[in-house]
Parts: sequence; structure tokens; C-alpha cells
Amino acid sequence: MLNASLAGVIDECRKHAEIGTLYGARFGLTGILREDFINLFDPDEETISRIARAPASALGTSRHAASQDDLIRTLEIFRRHNVRYFFYTGGNGSMCTACQLDLLAREMGLELQVVGIPKTIDNDLMETDHCPGYGSAARFFASALRDIGADNRSLPGQVEFVEVLGRNTGWIVAATSFARSREDDAPHLIYLPESPLPLDQLLDDVDRVYQRLGRCVVAVCEGQLDETGQPFGADVRVSSRGFLAMNLAHRLAVLVNERLKIRARGEKPGLLGRSSALNVSSSDWLEAGLCGRHAVIAGLRGQGGNMVTLMRDDQPEYAVHTGLAPLHRVALRERAFPVEWRSNAPHKLSPAFLEYAAPLVGEISNHASFPEEPSG
Amino acid sequence: MLNASLAGVIDECRKHAEIGTLYGARFGLTGILREDFINLFDPDEETISRIARAPASALGTSRHAASQDDLIRTLEIFRRHNVRYFFYTGGNGSMCTACQLDLLAREMGLELQVVGIPKTIDNDLMETDHCPGYGSAARFFASALRDIGADNRSLPGQVEFVEVLGRNTGWIVAATSFARSREDDAPHLIYLPESPLPLDQLLDDVDRVYQRLGRCVVAVCEGQLDETGQPFGADVRVSSRGFLAMNLAHRLAVLVNERLKIRARGEKPGLLGRSSALNVSSSDWLEAGLCGRHAVIAGLRGQGGNMVTLMRDDQPEYAVHTGLAPLHRVALRERAFPVEWRSNAPHKLSPAFLEYAAPLVGEISNHASFPEEPSG
Repeated sequence: MLNASLAGVIDECRKHAEIGTLYGARFGLTGILREDFINLFDPDEETISRIARAPASALGTSRHAASQDDLIRTLEIFRRHNVRYFFYTGGNGSMCTACQLDLLAREMGLELQVVGIPKTIDNDLMETDHCPGYGSAARFFASALRDIGADNRSLPGQVEFVEVLGRNTGWIVAATSFARSREDDAPHLIYLPESPLPLDQLLDDVDRVYQRLGRCVVAVCEGQLDETGQPFGADVRVSSRGFLAMNLAHRLAVLVNERLKIRARGEKPGLLGRSSALNVSSSDWLEAGLCGRHAVIAGLRGQGGNMVTLMRDDQPEYAVHTGLAPLHRVALRERAFPVEWRSNAPHKLSPAFLEYAAPLVGEISNHASFPEEPSG
Repeated sequence: MLNASLAGVIDECRKHAEIGTLYGARFGLTGILREDFINLFDPDEETISRIARAPASALGTSRHAASQDDLIRTLEIFRRHNVRYFFYTGGNGSMCTACQLDLLAREMGLELQVVGIPKTIDNDLMETDHCPGYGSAARFFASALRDIGADNRSLPGQVEFVEVLGRNTGWIVAATSFARSREDDAPHLIYLPESPLPLDQLLDDVDRVYQRLGRCVVAVCEGQLDETGQPFGADVRVSSRGFLAMNLAHRLAVLVNERLKIRARGEKPGLLGRSSALNVSSSDWLEAGLCGRHAVIAGLRGQGGNMVTLMRDDQPEYAVHTGLAPLHRVALRERAFPVEWRSNAPHKLSPAFLEYAAPLVGEISNHASFPEEPSG
């Protein structure tokens, strides 16, 4: 959705004569510091509308964590290029950088409007109803669980672990419940990483499903921890964004195989979950563009220091409007999956969550089958 | 594609008044032995046409390996139900079962036409130009490599291993080359499991790409072995269909990280590669239905003992017609990726392969990007 928002920014800027040049920084902050800019008014509208539909980031992004010195250099570069508006797209880390830049620019007396554009598949930004990127990632994993579920149903006798993106929050894994259209559809077990998962409980849950159906599909987050606060013995990599279990699905399959003597395997679509071009949610795509356009309008109105937010209209049919929230109320904070939407049963999500997420994910059609149920 | 072929069988059978009942066995041979049949003439045409588009098998399938006793019981059940035509869909293992049933029925003097319908994503059946199922799995992985490649390009500094289905043959992994539209697009390295891959060579190859581009995406088969005939220390599961490395992509990422000190990770879409409903190749889907219909016609003509084959028309534009090949020439034999289509360079496939596979996979559109190249 980074590209959809970028296209929204370009499209809106083109409408305003006071914006003479729109620079795009290659590879995020790295590109600013290298002054590696391209003029985003150069490509024709057709190219931009095609870029809007591409996954990942056409400009490129970076893992570079900004030091105070980087921020000062950034503002000096902006001053030299007469940059008056700065649009920064990302999650809570990016909003922290944007917030620091905004404060520093004010201290330095620089006329700069810094506007944040939300984008994270993790859906964990404060102050916004939801984040562009979330609906599409959720849609990818809901479709994946539906399809792997069809495979598991047609060739039973196996437990499947599917590792879902999401280090600390269960927003995406919760949405895999949209894969189900029948009571015995996959995923049969959905775990949210907000709660530790004792290995014995996992084994009991899997065994119960397997005894009943002769098959079992489990949706689990890459950030899921066991009762000791460890990822079940999986290899980990720890980064500033938290903890990443590199082979969790495989590790859980091995444990189930060893302890329950049931055939088991793990799948890890991994980065495909955030880059798949085939699973874009249409509301997600439209809203990403809307956030980009609104960021430009906010900048022109002198409303820098804010991030664009999405607010749900108070009406039965789904509709959103944009708002603004101060960057400091978003920076580095993380919105957990609401406690009241969790459930003790590892297969049910609360109706309130399903109602919230359904329009973001879009319809997941069910696969046709023969009228009678397989006897298992 | 199992369901598309099944729909072809049902559709064709409906046209022939001499076929009074069409039984479908739940879960393959297991269903026959349990006499767990459904009448495939019961569902209406709309239901069948929706089932035709569903992934996996709507009837269900099984891992049950048929004993001689099972085969005799199967034929007794067929005699009791007055089954005169038997259509069996699958790969070289299924064709072996079909072949044994055919021989046994002839010995027993049973009037039974056994016709095989090819279906395997592995594309490793003899006597046919290609197999239904292959084009769609190839399309899934080509799209996946394209999308993961876009992610890797936009956030460089990382090596990505993508584990591709295919235990013994490189048909699917070779098709990931369709992910590329630019010289420096992913996958940068493609390995075929027909050749062992010395770890030092892999590390050298990865390092060379990484030094040049600052990023690297590697497509590797779940059945890839190193120079010692082992899967690089990955956990394995050995089955009748061969060897399955359960965490190969992860294992290779760990090795690259340890030896080259480069950030690396592995993705394993796994079974999603054979069940994804979003990546169906249209020629594949049409041909699966064609094979089902032709199997019925062959049966009615008394041409049992054969498997339906797909033959490419001898003309510049892609077109196929169906043929027949004796089951015993298909059973248990495996068609390796042709030696003359392999290449010494781990990133290039021969033009002959690309010409062969392009119409099976269908067009993989490229993602738009800004005119200038990122400076990396």
C-alpha cells in the first residue's frame, strides 16, 4: 500500500500550483541523506497509476535508524532544496522519526510541514481505526488458510501449522477466521501472540481437533511465545521491531510429530504475505490513496506534526473519512489486539472483531464442495 | 486441477445415455474399500462448475498404498456395483495402481475399462507433453518470486531463500524464471534438484549476487541436496514419494547468515503452492477439463489400460490435443527435467524450456517502477 499512498500524494500535489517540485527519496531516509532524489512529477499519469498497484515500495525503503545527527542533516538538506512539506509513510517507528523531525524543525525555525501517512500490515498504530496495509495482509492469510484448509480436508491425516506475519499483535492472525465458511473449516485453532501459549495446551488443543476431524490446521503468529517466554525452541532473530521466530511453524510441527505421533508440517508464506499482488483488499487500496491525498491537503493547511488517520463513519454501512492525530501520540506506541475481543476458545474470535475487520478484508468466497460431508 | 478433471468426467458422462450412474469415491481408494460413494449425477450443473474451480480435491484423496488384497477387493466391489468404467486421476503412483487394477481385471475376466487422468504439479509423468496441475503451481511460484523480489528490491540488504515444491525434479523451480522482467530481477539464483549443490558453490553464488546488487533472492527446491547427498542439515521426512526437507529455506538462510555474515531469511509457501485458488493458469484449467472428458470417451471406446496424454500441436501458436499412452509406460516412471535444458549458470534457463513452459504458466505481468533504477 506504500505505492498507493505515494500515488495519492503525487496526484494531489499535481493539483496545487504552489507545489513546484515533488521529490521522492530513494530508499527512505538513506536516500535523503545521500540526496538521492527523483522528481515525482516526471512520470506520466499512466506510469503512476501502474506503480500505485505494485507491491512493496517503488521508491524503496530502508532499515536505517535515524540518529540525531541524521535528523539535523536531513533538515539542512531540506532547507537547501527548499523542501516545505515532508510526507513520511510507515508504522510507529517511522512516525517517531517524523515526530522528531517535526520538533527539530520547529526548534530550528524551519518552515516545514511534516505529515505522517499510516501504513503497516500490523495494524498496530494508535489513533486510527485501522492502518492501510492491514486489510490486504489479512486477506492474503485468510485466503491462504482457506486454500491450505481445502488441501488438508481433501488429504486428511495431517496437522498443518501456518505461520502468519505479526510479531507482537494478533491483528492478522485473528483475521484468518474469515477463511471459514463451515463449522469444521480451517483454521481449527487460532492463537494470538498477546497471550503466551503453553506447549501442553497447544498439544491438547491439536489432539482434540485431530481426534474429532482426523485433520487440523493451526494459524500461529511468528511472534508467538510459550509459557516460558521462549518461541518453543525455534531459532530467533531480535531486531528493533521485536522478535522474529525464523522457523516457528516447522518447530511446532516437529513437536506435534514427536509428542502426539501425528504427521505434521509447517508452512511459512512469510514476506509473500505482505507483498502478494494477488490479494489486495479493495477498501485497503482505496484508503491508502485517500491517506496520501489527505496528507498533502493537511500539509498545505499548515497542519504539520500530525499523522493522517482513518475514522469509521457512524452508520451501519461501512464508510471512512480521514482525520489527523498528533505524531507524538502515535510514535513508538503499539495498539494491542483489544482484550475484550479476545476469547478463551482458541478457534473463535469475538463477533465485534469480525464486524470490525470484515469490510477491511473484503469477502473471502468459499470453495464449492459436494452436498454431503466427507466421512473423514 | 483434480476438480476441473472431475467436472470434465461428470460433464462428458452426462452426455452418454449408456452411463446410468457415476459414482465418486470419497478419499480415493480408501473410499472405494469403504464403499463410501456419492452419486456424481446428483449435484446440479452450477454446483459442478463451482466445484471445478475449487482447489485440492472435492472428493478427497488418500495416502493409502494399495495392497494386492485391496486391489482384489476393489474389483469385487466394482463387480457388485456393476462398475464398467474406472477413471483414476493422479501422478505416477496413481497410474501404477490403475495399471495393476487394469491387469488384474483382465485376469479376472472383468469387463472394466480403466483410464488414467494425468494430474501432478510435479510435471514428471512420461508420455505426455505436460501434466495438468503443473502450469498453476509454476504460476504460483513465479508470481511469488516476482512479489518477494519486489519486496527484496525495495528493502535491500537481505538474502531471501524461497523454498519451491518439487522433490526430485526441477520443473516448478525452473519456471520461477518467469518472475523476471528486468536483468536484475529476482530470482537471482535458481537451482534444479537434479544436480547436487555444493554448499561452497551456493555461498559463492549468493555472495557474488549480493556484492553486485546488495540483495539476493534464491529459488530452491524442497528436494535439493548438497554435495554429500544431504539436505544441508535440514530436518527431513522420507516417504514413498521421496524425500522432503522440512525446513530447507530456513536452514540455508542460517548458513548464509553464519558464513557470509549477511542478513538472510527463508520463506516456504509450501502447500499453498499447490492449493492457491488465485494462481490458476487458464490453459492448465482448460486442459484438466479436457483430460477428464477425453478419459470418458476413451473408456466408452474400449480403450482402457491407457492414460490420457496432452500432445502439443505442431504449429507456431500453442494448442494441444489429447492422446493415449499405455498405463504401464507411465506407472512409477519419472520424467526428469531434460539435461539439454539445464544450464551451468545458476540463474539462466535454456530458451527451449522457456518456450515450452510459457503457454503453460501464462503471462506473469511485471510490476511498474520508476524509470530510473534505484542506486542500491
